[in-house]
Amino acid sequence: MARPQPLSGFPEYLPAQSAVEQQFITLLRESFELHGFGRIETRAVEPLEQLNRKGEITKEVYTVKRLHAAADDVAELGLHFDLTVPFARYVLENAGHLVFPFRRHQIQKVWRGERPQEGRYREFCQADIDIVGQDTLAGHHDIEVVLVALEAFEKMHTQLNLPPVLMRVNTRKLAQGFYDGLGVTDALSVIQRVDKIHKIGRDGVASLLADECGLTPVQIEPVLELATIQSSDTSFRDRVLALVAAHPGLDNEVLHAGLTELAELIEQVSAQFPGRIVADLSIARGLDYYTGPVFEVELVGHEGLGAISAGGRYDALASDGKRTFPGVGISIGVTRILAPLLAKGVLTASRSVPSCVLVAVDDESDRSSAVAVATALRSRGIPCEVAPKADKFGKQIRHADRRGIPFVWFGGLTGQVKDIRSGEQVDAVAQDWQPPADDILPRVISSN
Amino acid sequence: MARPQPLSGFPEYLPAQSAVEQQFITLLRESFELHGFGRIETRAVEPLEQLNRKGEITKEVYTVKRLHAAADDVAELGLHFDLTVPFARYVLENAGHLVFPFRRHQIQKVWRGERPQEGRYREFCQADIDIVGQDTLAGHHDIEVVLVALEAFEKMHTQLNLPPVLMRVNTRKLAQGFYDGLGVTDALSVIQRVDKIHKIGRDGVASLLADECGLTPVQIEPVLELATIQSSDTSFRDRVLALVAAHPGLDNEVLHAGLTELAELIEQVSAQFPGRIVADLSIARGLDYYTGPVFEVELVGHEGLGAISAGGRYDALASDGKRTFPGVGISIGVTRILAPLLAKGVLTASRSVPSCVLVAVDDESDRSSAVAVATALRSRGIPCEVAPKADKFGKQIRHADRRGIPFVWFGGLTGQVKDIRSGEQVDAVAQDWQPPADDILPRVISSN
Repeated sequence: MARPQPLSGFPEYLPAQSAVEQQFITLLRESFELHGFGRIETRAVEPLEQLNRKGEITKEVYTVKRLHAAADDVAELGLHFDLTVPFARYVLENAGHLVFPFRRHQIQKVWRGERPQEGRYREFCQADIDIVGQDTLAGHHDIEVVLVALEAFEKMHTQLNLPPVLMRVNTRKLAQGFYDGLGVTDALSVIQRVDKIHKIGRDGVASLLADECGLTPVQIEPVLELATIQSSDTSFRDRVLALVAAHPGLDNEVLHAGLTELAELIEQVSAQFPGRIVADLSIARGLDYYTGPVFEVELVGHEGLGAISAGGRYDALASDGKRTFPGVGISIGVTRILAPLLAKGVLTASRSVPSCVLVAVDDESDRSSAVAVATALRSRGIPCEVAPKADKFGKQIRHADRRGIPFVWFGGLTGQVKDIRSGEQVDAVAQDWQPPADDILPRVISSN
Repeated sequence: MARPQPLSGFPEYLPAQSAVEQQFITLLRESFELHGFGRIETRAVEPLEQLNRKGEITKEVYTVKRLHAAADDVAELGLHFDLTVPFARYVLENAGHLVFPFRRHQIQKVWRGERPQEGRYREFCQADIDIVGQDTLAGHHDIEVVLVALEAFEKMHTQLNLPPVLMRVNTRKLAQGFYDGLGVTDALSVIQRVDKIHKIGRDGVASLLADECGLTPVQIEPVLELATIQSSDTSFRDRVLALVAAHPGLDNEVLHAGLTELAELIEQVSAQFPGRIVADLSIARGLDYYTGPVFEVELVGHEGLGAISAGGRYDALASDGKRTFPGVGISIGVTRILAPLLAKGVLTASRSVPSCVLVAVDDESDRSSAVAVATALRSRGIPCEVAPKADKFGKQIRHADRRGIPFVWFGGLTGQVKDIRSGEQVDAVAQDWQPPADDILPRVISSN
């Protein structure tokens, strides 16, 4: 068989790269669980009509069918394209078995049949957290979700050497109140266009607002003014109030509720994570279900990757007619963060195998003594492997070196261990020798 | 929207059940990594012609297509139905970047479009380990893979309270040599029929051997005799040799190589895991690529679940014409083990959330002091959550109780903590209070 070629849009990792992903996923999971978010996973497929509910994504769905489906096999299935649609279905399906507010994390692959391009994938991993209430959900959970996400990002930065993040936040209420005050009738369609300001610029958005939303120049100007307001503290409030003062009739309760909500978020979060959050009134998030704060996260120094995480508050994740489930959540693009950095070699692992020690085999007839050494090391949590064949010491060291294994053990339970990086070799007893803590697992190495 | 219904064959778990699966997967992964097996994941899809190579599974493949695929979008993709086919492709694709013998674990979902029935799933999780060499691979790796798997199963039993396992082993060489000696020309087709002996019985297999393989009664009798030989020690060897002595011409080198190989495996493995392994000469494994030892594992007391794990030695996982990649591996059916036990309530977790502590909120204006307590606990790895709203103490305790959270914290950093199971309430300081180690994470509870 000829050498197979990669499939465009379906990234796969070499073992060292996969170790980085594993550590990142474990960090996220443990970080979420410290905050009481339990794990769920949903099946990869949903009934197609379920995936079709949100019109604009329809074209990106992958359908799934049995190769030899019977003619009467009408079940139409598609691969999920995010974790929100399946989660909404899961909450409705299992509401009777869940206790609300329900906190969950979900770290899974999703699929989109988009045309692959830089930073876009057809298969990618997302890590979502949400807090969902039954009928009501207190506003402090909006701040909580942001804090949980930033704590995870901070660990990603300090423990895995990835770049720090900057979270941009806004609230739908502010835009809604502001647009209402301007007499804009379809606030959502304006929000969706303003969202493109970083891509197509101020003039581009102005044209869209005139041509597609029918806004007058008198309306467009303050809409664009609002979108340019940014501050890492609560000073955005004064700038909005100045705009309001300049446009009589703009003042209203929804706008003020938005200002208060956003100021509180910025205040509490920047106290804990200074420099990691900024109010950015251009942030809109295209999806129509957000009703309160919205968040977008970029990787500092890698802004070209786009939003590597996003989320917000929604008043109805799902509803069964009797009950409504409001929530707040954020989604982290695991593949979106890692795949480009791994591909460019910005990130890698210190070795391609979990093994911290290679136990050398002197003679095939003495393999069992090497196995005993390995067993003793493993019983104390030290990953190791026994050399695949008896060989000269130099060859065994080269075997370890090719895999990045830092230590080679010679002799039996009471033997010698060599750090092949420094060349230092010392007497050691397998029942109590301990490698430096930093060497036990592969480390994430970053050239940032 | 009406309450959605589950999809038959696509099991999903409630949060407490998902916590059990998470712990099982983590246990497997860490166990494999202690032995130097690194993680890889492959994409969910493979080109359809790749999945079609093994004729008999073709009918179970799910095809994947973009909903609005262009007419010229000819890429035919299918979901992988096991992890062996994608792994073989991965090895060929990346051989230049891998070091051999290459050890990997792979824990992923797979999909089969089978008609769903008890114990059969359309989506399920498998955990595979394999050791793959380039051109050659020493026989001691066969024993190693068995030991790694049994060590993981032993931890599953002792740490997660699941039932113990029994592994049945055989070797293809023994059957091959024996059948050659009997003048059977198509050994593989005989092996595949003998494999059904536990399902359809001795007489059923005899009929198949006569009708479908054209064996004579003189050939059928020793074939069935061989298949009934079992021993937990190496005494199977004497019984095979007695059969050989009774049938002149049966003696040959391949048969003796098989006897030696199997005896060595039984001897070394049962020394380390007494009672967990048995030689069972009926074990054949239907797949045509096995060439040496084959393994099948059942859950003691739950034999009706069938093989919850299986594997063996193959001399050609893949080949690119120049190089051949022999290997040995075993696949563990994570869903096959857990889904029935979780559904029957034999297994569950001690709580439905990760939180070990609920920090009570006395008054909404004092939420920040509860958050400070939670932060102090989390910094020492204790999962906790802050009560969603200020409430009477009794209501906060009920909130914890409904989730199975064992501890409720009252007051600030210097406060009191109540074990709601015993009712005991003690003074505690958030910076140093420590719950019992057993309570930090949800425990797996088994009614076995």
